[in-house]
Amino acid sequence: MAQADKVAVIVGAGFGGLNAARALRRAPVQVVLLDRNNYHLFQPLLYQVATAGLEPEQIAKPVRAILRGQKNFDFRLVEVRGVDFAQRRLDTSGGPITYDFLVLSHGSETNFFGLDSMTKNGLGLKDIPDAVRIRNHVLTCFEHAMLEGDPEIRRAKLTFVVVGGGPTGVEMAGALSELIRLVLVKDYPRLNIKDVRILLLEATDTLLAAMPERLRDAAVKTLWRKWIEVRFSAVVADFDGDRVRLKSGEVIPARTVIWAAGVKAAPLNGHLGLTAGRQGRIPVEPTLQLQGHPEVFLIGDASYVEENGEPLPMVAPVAIQMGQHAARNIVNTLRGKALQSFRYRDQGTLATIGRNAAVANVFGIQARGFVAWVMWLGIHIIQLIGFRNKLFVLLNWAWDYFFYERAARLITRD
Amino acid sequence: MAQADKVAVIVGAGFGGLNAARALRRAPVQVVLLDRNNYHLFQPLLYQVATAGLEPEQIAKPVRAILRGQKNFDFRLVEVRGVDFAQRRLDTSGGPITYDFLVLSHGSETNFFGLDSMTKNGLGLKDIPDAVRIRNHVLTCFEHAMLEGDPEIRRAKLTFVVVGGGPTGVEMAGALSELIRLVLVKDYPRLNIKDVRILLLEATDTLLAAMPERLRDAAVKTLWRKWIEVRFSAVVADFDGDRVRLKSGEVIPARTVIWAAGVKAAPLNGHLGLTAGRQGRIPVEPTLQLQGHPEVFLIGDASYVEENGEPLPMVAPVAIQMGQHAARNIVNTLRGKALQSFRYRDQGTLATIGRNAAVANVFGIQARGFVAWVMWLGIHIIQLIGFRNKLFVLLNWAWDYFFYERAARLITRD
Repeated sequence: MAQADKVAVIVGAGFGGLNAARALRRAPVQVVLLDRNNYHLFQPLLYQVATAGLEPEQIAKPVRAILRGQKNFDFRLVEVRGVDFAQRRLDTSGGPITYDFLVLSHGSETNFFGLDSMTKNGLGLKDIPDAVRIRNHVLTCFEHAMLEGDPEIRRAKLTFVVVGGGPTGVEMAGALSELIRLVLVKDYPRLNIKDVRILLLEATDTLLAAMPERLRDAAVKTLWRKWIEVRFSAVVADFDGDRVRLKSGEVIPARTVIWAAGVKAAPLNGHLGLTAGRQGRIPVEPTLQLQGHPEVFLIGDASYVEENGEPLPMVAPVAIQMGQHAARNIVNTLRGKALQSFRYRDQGTLATIGRNAAVANVFGIQARGFVAWVMWLGIHIIQLIGFRNKLFVLLNWAWDYFFYERAARLITRD
Repeated sequence: MAQADKVAVIVGAGFGGLNAARALRRAPVQVVLLDRNNYHLFQPLLYQVATAGLEPEQIAKPVRAILRGQKNFDFRLVEVRGVDFAQRRLDTSGGPITYDFLVLSHGSETNFFGLDSMTKNGLGLKDIPDAVRIRNHVLTCFEHAMLEGDPEIRRAKLTFVVVGGGPTGVEMAGALSELIRLVLVKDYPRLNIKDVRILLLEATDTLLAAMPERLRDAAVKTLWRKWIEVRFSAVVADFDGDRVRLKSGEVIPARTVIWAAGVKAAPLNGHLGLTAGRQGRIPVEPTLQLQGHPEVFLIGDASYVEENGEPLPMVAPVAIQMGQHAARNIVNTLRGKALQSFRYRDQGTLATIGRNAAVANVFGIQARGFVAWVMWLGIHIIQLIGFRNKLFVLLNWAWDYFFYERAARLITRD
């Protein structure tokens, strides 16, 4: 790196930020990546940490370890509080940081849609502490149910409500059902499995809205076969920690609500002084630049881009491609070339529902059941970062598949 | 189990309690094991979790999973608050529990010797949250040191003090040194390794007091070779979070003090209404029964037993043998046989200091260096509970050995 190199600061080490940093590895810039965590998290497998199948360390890797070989790279563990676009300066917990280029990829957080009781009593699933909290909570419910004399209270402790019929909710419900019916039944010989209920509540009349109808129907059937009560047009009004109340007036006694109903842009979007649209996302130019700030790129879940009149979804593949694209446009700027507009190459979606069961609509192929499940396994192992993580996750999966086990069912804190 | 079976309640799922429960598997009693955690922890490897070498789930296993096949076994996740010996009843967070036989094996906690500033600012190492706290703290110190402009403060952030020259302190200091000098140096290319200091403070003039002199000397030499400043007759007077003050008046600027200077009986000992001796341990009969309460056995770190005029050490092998012995004496009682006195079969001690380096004095063999290190590896893998844990720990060790890595270096919370 020459002393005169420009500095490209990237905010957030998620899929977008990490891929932007990597794509700049041969660019004549000094890359500085900021995150409040020291690791990159493979969020698509977070629900498996929440259901005791994987250990947190197996789906996360320290950012410094990932980008260790990249000469022009530096990492800083700080929290970003705001941006002074005029001065090209970030306000962070570690003091001010100035930039020549800025890539904002700070991502999203759980969207409780202003439901205060859910913010307080519900369980989101966006980061490692969330997942460990769900694992501890579910296992503690079983332990407390075993000590409970009142059958009504016992059943409430064994009622698990998952809200949201997107891929996260579907995968969470499926994994929870298998954790309970294949593994925990062996741990609790005195458990009456008829006391256990898992509900998947979806506000619309469709699960996995991005899938073709045939696969959506297959998913619903598979969920029912796994003893999950799938409820459509079920809108949650309130959860006081003891009972879930629906808009319809229905009341479900339950101690556990896992909220997978949506995400919104991370709070930093609110401190940028810009007008945010739906889900707190900020519209950007087709080049991913912020309007009026050509040196600033806003990518991933925090940015709003439309294609064919539809907003791009808040998913990892969009963030990955945007990160690579922002990096390319930074290089184009340095070379005095014209910037390119972003085009999303949609490779489809997958969701697994458990052993031998998944739905896949990828690379132009529609599949379900065992074939889709194998595709799901392969694609996730390939995408996991680091050979060691791949190896340990594969070993864990193989073990659990053959022995009907879940190794990580520890209650590590309250 | 016949309806009329007597109930043996065991408090604590550590080495003592777990082995008592196992040894009662064919006894005509109903075994109820109580613990506030749902897992048994292999404490001898806890320092490797603290130094990012192992993941917590790899050295812990749910109690229900360990004893799943045992017909006369039940587990309850409760906290024990006291015992009414006259009524043969425990007071627990899950209500009262009555017993015919009681095995108290509630273990020990970190002993800060009344040093309030250390209780507040020091880092103990007795359970998983302790270990994760040390890991997070050490890694955060490195991240913050990288952001620090003042060289004095930066050096203080990179100064790590381990207090206590027993096996835990020695292993902790060695593992910390290797984490920093073999792994973190690669993560922090701008780190000046001369800014890093590790001190091992011992209050007496001897490390590893239970070892023969030849091996103690070898251990000190090995620690120095690993750039650890071993200090004898160094008694800590105070630690305010910024500097350690010794009784001698010496002041060491440091942000990290890991306290491995000793343990004392867990608080429950104080609620038993009995007279406790040194380290809060309660003297018991040679049969391990509580004086005046032949149906109550007190074992492990919480009990005080002398042999040849010396108290038995507070270590895992003593607790394991006591657990098995208490179970045998319960069976003897049921059969109307005479109870046996406990005799500890001391198989020696081991301590590892890092790659290819350990000292061992076991089974009548004295060894150091590579040979002792291989013995240490083998003995620990054999003792770890569960084939899966053995496999994953072995894989982790092999990987770290050949690639000079530590996979678990995540900062998972503040």
